[in-house]
Amino acid sequence: MSKRPTIAITCGEPAGIGPEISIRAAWELRADVKSVLIGDAAFLSMIAASINPDIHLSALSLQAVRNNGLPAFPRDQIAVIDCPLAAHVVPGKLDAHNGRYVLQTLDIAIDGALQGWFDAIVTAPLQKSTINDAGVPFTGHTEYLADKTGTKQVVMMLATNATPQPLRVALATTHLALKDIASAITFESLSDIIDILHADLQKKFGIAQPRILVTGLNPHAGEGGYLGREEIDVITPALQAAQAKGYDVSGPYPADTLFQQKLLANADCVLAMYHDQGLPVLKYASFGLGVNITLGLPIIRTSVDHGTALDLAAAGLGQADHGSMLEAIRVAAQMAAASRASTE
Amino acid sequence: MSKRPTIAITCGEPAGIGPEISIRAAWELRADVKSVLIGDAAFLSMIAASINPDIHLSALSLQAVRNNGLPAFPRDQIAVIDCPLAAHVVPGKLDAHNGRYVLQTLDIAIDGALQGWFDAIVTAPLQKSTINDAGVPFTGHTEYLADKTGTKQVVMMLATNATPQPLRVALATTHLALKDIASAITFESLSDIIDILHADLQKKFGIAQPRILVTGLNPHAGEGGYLGREEIDVITPALQAAQAKGYDVSGPYPADTLFQQKLLANADCVLAMYHDQGLPVLKYASFGLGVNITLGLPIIRTSVDHGTALDLAAAGLGQADHGSMLEAIRVAAQMAAASRASTE
Repeated sequence: MSKRPTIAITCGEPAGIGPEISIRAAWELRADVKSVLIGDAAFLSMIAASINPDIHLSALSLQAVRNNGLPAFPRDQIAVIDCPLAAHVVPGKLDAHNGRYVLQTLDIAIDGALQGWFDAIVTAPLQKSTINDAGVPFTGHTEYLADKTGTKQVVMMLATNATPQPLRVALATTHLALKDIASAITFESLSDIIDILHADLQKKFGIAQPRILVTGLNPHAGEGGYLGREEIDVITPALQAAQAKGYDVSGPYPADTLFQQKLLANADCVLAMYHDQGLPVLKYASFGLGVNITLGLPIIRTSVDHGTALDLAAAGLGQADHGSMLEAIRVAAQMAAASRASTE
Repeated sequence: MSKRPTIAITCGEPAGIGPEISIRAAWELRADVKSVLIGDAAFLSMIAASINPDIHLSALSLQAVRNNGLPAFPRDQIAVIDCPLAAHVVPGKLDAHNGRYVLQTLDIAIDGALQGWFDAIVTAPLQKSTINDAGVPFTGHTEYLADKTGTKQVVMMLATNATPQPLRVALATTHLALKDIASAITFESLSDIIDILHADLQKKFGIAQPRILVTGLNPHAGEGGYLGREEIDVITPALQAAQAKGYDVSGPYPADTLFQQKLLANADCVLAMYHDQGLPVLKYASFGLGVNITLGLPIIRTSVDHGTALDLAAAGLGQADHGSMLEAIRVAAQMAAASRASTE
């Protein structure tokens, strides 16, 4: 890679596996990616030293970066923008005193990306309850990112380098009770989502004419109206409107037969109508190496597709698998490169 | 195999690929399975001769079988119980005149299985619309089988010999519009389904203590009530009641993370709450070799997991893939053997 992209990595819940997998992955990818960890520098240095004494972390103060920008630093070092913890961390044990710390690391990453310090941000898992227990209403990373960047609509996409071909699945709805899904999908919401998906596959993935396959909402995509009318009343009109804009979108396809190699081989992304329609296949295919991508933001953001794994953190270093974090950083780097190419 | 099981194969919609794949699969498996095709003997003989002149079909009259039972016939022959077509068949072209013919082949198979002529029945795909156009209200194979055998509740299960391990997925609801699913799942319905699943995995699959993993209804299995209450109000109580009977059932698990090898390796079956939650993974994993199994019936019944493929039929013999039919017959034979062992 001619130029290493600069990627901010928020280390997430400090009592979880986030700090360890962030350090391991950043170190492993240092030849290709200029990683900037966001977290408590002393805390992260201690973990790094336990993982491998060869790992060099160099601490930066946020104020210095604000004043002078990110400094150059050698390829064998990982930068850390210092963001102090509020309380001592016991691995595996949640502590609401550190709830605001987790948000501060996010704020630094988001602000830095908006100011151009970072080409992308990658987020390690956090624990929603800790932040809520700290008195801050918080529903999730994605919503927080949308809010902080003034983005009205974001789209969740998961991607994996599955065999025999990569798989990307975007969702028309995310964390909704099943009974509320049908009424949440409207012509307008679906059109917005398709616009974002089309635009970001072009802009952030460098795909000139993205090919998007769209599922139906009902089994067998409604079977001509016998198993639900949303395909006829909502989805098909939205797809026709998108096609009229020149987008290569097709569907609605029955979800159970859409995920066939012969169909996927000619597509860049599947748009599923809801969480449990699209993600089981993706996670089955990815074996823990899925990457969560938030589309629609003014910045590039990826994350792992697993949680804080407090039990593994409690068991000590060396238990967690940093495979998904490696993939999240790799995908962010690819997106940064595609994004740079598309704006040049 | 010490004793070849006797399996009835209904050849399905005559204008589709059913006749061809039935003949090919029956012939290929003749060393292990005594197949009895149900269909128009002259029509099937003509197709068999075109596929391969070595294939020997021997026609039986239904009346003769009724009077004397199934005769012995050589291992290099496939029996056909003759059931005459009403109209000439043009491949790929539906004709309502043959709608009742398709039902008659089903009736012969069901009656024969109930009378003990057959150890199992395997059904090739039919076209619902042809039967409805013939003036017979018909919603599907499964419902017809339930009705004809006086079965109140059946359970749809799909199975595949995926790598690295076989996958079985049963469904708590089948062909329902998405918005109607949540209210269709009750403590009683779920308990009945778990009873059938547990009993048939024992009786028809020979699994002494079946291990069943159950999904939640909502994303993240409701996340403790934040994304829907059905897990708390309905599913968990039904699982507890099943556990109290000594069943090895567990859940509710988030559907997107349930289909992991480490969980599936210790399970015999997944019970998903609805069609598009369970089947995309199964069909992704099976690459067109899935088998549809109807549990709860007094007989063993399997079928292919694809449709009539009228376009392939119209294109002439040799276009269709009989892989799913081979698997459907193999699974029926395995179930027949397990069933015989469990009653001996």
